[in-house]
Amino acid sequence: MFENIGDWLCKEGEFSDIVLSSRIRLARNIKGFPFAIKMKDKDREELLEIVKKAVEKVDILREREYIDISKIDPVKAQALLERHLVSPDFLSARHPRGVFVSKDQTISLMVNEEDHLRFSVFAPGLGFDVAYKKINEIDDELNKYLNYAFSKRLGYLTACPTNVGTGLRASVLIHLPGLVLTKEIEKVLKGVMQVGLSVRGIYGEGTETRGHFFQIANQVTLGLSETEIIENIKGMVVQLVTLERKARDFFMEKAKVELEDKIYRSYAILRNARVITSEEVINLTSAVRLGIGLGIIKDINLRTLNGILILSQPANLQLYYKRVMSPQERDVKRAEFIRERLNHRYKKGGSHEI
Amino acid sequence: MFENIGDWLCKEGEFSDIVLSSRIRLARNIKGFPFAIKMKDKDREELLEIVKKAVEKVDILREREYIDISKIDPVKAQALLERHLVSPDFLSARHPRGVFVSKDQTISLMVNEEDHLRFSVFAPGLGFDVAYKKINEIDDELNKYLNYAFSKRLGYLTACPTNVGTGLRASVLIHLPGLVLTKEIEKVLKGVMQVGLSVRGIYGEGTETRGHFFQIANQVTLGLSETEIIENIKGMVVQLVTLERKARDFFMEKAKVELEDKIYRSYAILRNARVITSEEVINLTSAVRLGIGLGIIKDINLRTLNGILILSQPANLQLYYKRVMSPQERDVKRAEFIRERLNHRYKKGGSHEI
Repeated sequence: MFENIGDWLCKEGEFSDIVLSSRIRLARNIKGFPFAIKMKDKDREELLEIVKKAVEKVDILREREYIDISKIDPVKAQALLERHLVSPDFLSARHPRGVFVSKDQTISLMVNEEDHLRFSVFAPGLGFDVAYKKINEIDDELNKYLNYAFSKRLGYLTACPTNVGTGLRASVLIHLPGLVLTKEIEKVLKGVMQVGLSVRGIYGEGTETRGHFFQIANQVTLGLSETEIIENIKGMVVQLVTLERKARDFFMEKAKVELEDKIYRSYAILRNARVITSEEVINLTSAVRLGIGLGIIKDINLRTLNGILILSQPANLQLYYKRVMSPQERDVKRAEFIRERLNHRYKKGGSHEI
Repeated sequence: MFENIGDWLCKEGEFSDIVLSSRIRLARNIKGFPFAIKMKDKDREELLEIVKKAVEKVDILREREYIDISKIDPVKAQALLERHLVSPDFLSARHPRGVFVSKDQTISLMVNEEDHLRFSVFAPGLGFDVAYKKINEIDDELNKYLNYAFSKRLGYLTACPTNVGTGLRASVLIHLPGLVLTKEIEKVLKGVMQVGLSVRGIYGEGTETRGHFFQIANQVTLGLSETEIIENIKGMVVQLVTLERKARDFFMEKAKVELEDKIYRSYAILRNARVITSEEVINLTSAVRLGIGLGIIKDINLRTLNGILILSQPANLQLYYKRVMSPQERDVKRAEFIRERLNHRYKKGGSHEI
């Protein structure tokens, strides 16, 4: 599975120039099992077996892979995190746990995370409708074979009160360089948070908002229906896209050449560096992505750029080159990998085409 | 004359990969005229007339241009400085003064500088022999028609005691990035100064040593013969070239990929920037020059790079585009100029080929 990136990053969706991806996640717990904090390893193993059997019957998960996180090679585990298929806490835990990943990498189902089940569906661009339809299907299917912990008054019961209710978290990965450049970003993100949405960096909680990428998600699920949550965040994303477009237009009018300079330099460095860190890649691809959005860079597409963003990260890079590398060695191989991708950008097909 | 750069920058000489150019300058005063500090404007005008008549008879200066600095357009004046054909003090003075420049721009003869006459000959690479032969010829010719102030005990008399004696200043413009990278440069330059040579930046006294370019010259002329002065500095330059080559080899062995990274990035930025300052050009061309020296960059030559270094400077750039520009506008046009030069690098001929 590590040869390719997920469909949600190599296909395009609505507003793909600004919205990288949408994700819906559900948190579910199974009646008859204690909540995670009180679980023994025996309970967890039992739960894993039950879920495995259930998953086997879910049609949409026919083509999938099961990964036993307690046994997996640490580089592969890290690679899953870099692809947003598992959470940091799930990786660092010590108890029995595993994740099902669909072949196209748009579905991830973690067992024994903070809740018994945490499953996510990813879609390219602003793709909540697609993701919601799919996750509902999985949820309904699983429910046939698994008895969810549910209260008529509260809804789905979860380990953390913030997830009680629908257990649903809807989030987008959005790219807002225009608003950063016009310095409106703080004001805008304040507005986002005031309507009950959270803002994080590209790798979730506690990570910096590097390269002008932001993750926006709902914070509370209690008291709202699934569709209300999704419509709320959808409305906000559409607003952000509008504001971002305006900011880009403004900047293109006021400081076109400076913007072009930044974009062309970033693209040139990506194509020519011999040593490069992951962090620099995030920042440079950010500028190049903006260049594609503005029609300044025409010879590569967003898919290529998303592929670089994901596959050039430390663990994925080591998997790509099939060997463990020191950080210094990685920085050299990363630069080589990116040059290859950008110089073969016209070539169609091939096992590593993304 | 502003369409082309001097022969001394577009031809190659000994050690051209490290030594950009050599220059010999003579300071001469004319008997019967007071020294500069005591001169009236009337004296200066009279001196100018006498020198003009003498120059007309000098065979080697047959193809020349006379530029009246008190009447010249300030951009053109600045462009002469950027080409090292006049000194900063000569430009900022207010009295009658002028400069003769040979067609190939390897000879400059300032009248009414700190001394009555200051004339220089430039040669590419370590070219003191060529320059010395030429300047001697000019000196002998001029002496036929001009009566030099000369003392049997002291030699040629000059306004400043540091020039008394031969009145000769020999200097090289040398590129020492290897010694900067290995951090040996301070120690090495200390050694240079200890044998009575001076070290300055690319634009003479008080300028920083940007882009790892250094000007090295003799400080004292009294008590030494012309050839002793020249042999001293020549010996030092050969030593510096050897040390620089060793430093480059060392770095290529120890940190090849980091060095390549710096070189390729610099070249990529030069080829792709849309806004660029003169200072950045000096730094980037410095890295690219090193890349050419190391055989890493093969598709451009030193001439092209020297042309960029000289012609992209503020005044020369304005002359090239035939209009006065604001610093902001210049930064944009400079980037355009450089892209053009680097993308048409294979094209031979044409009025602006350098």
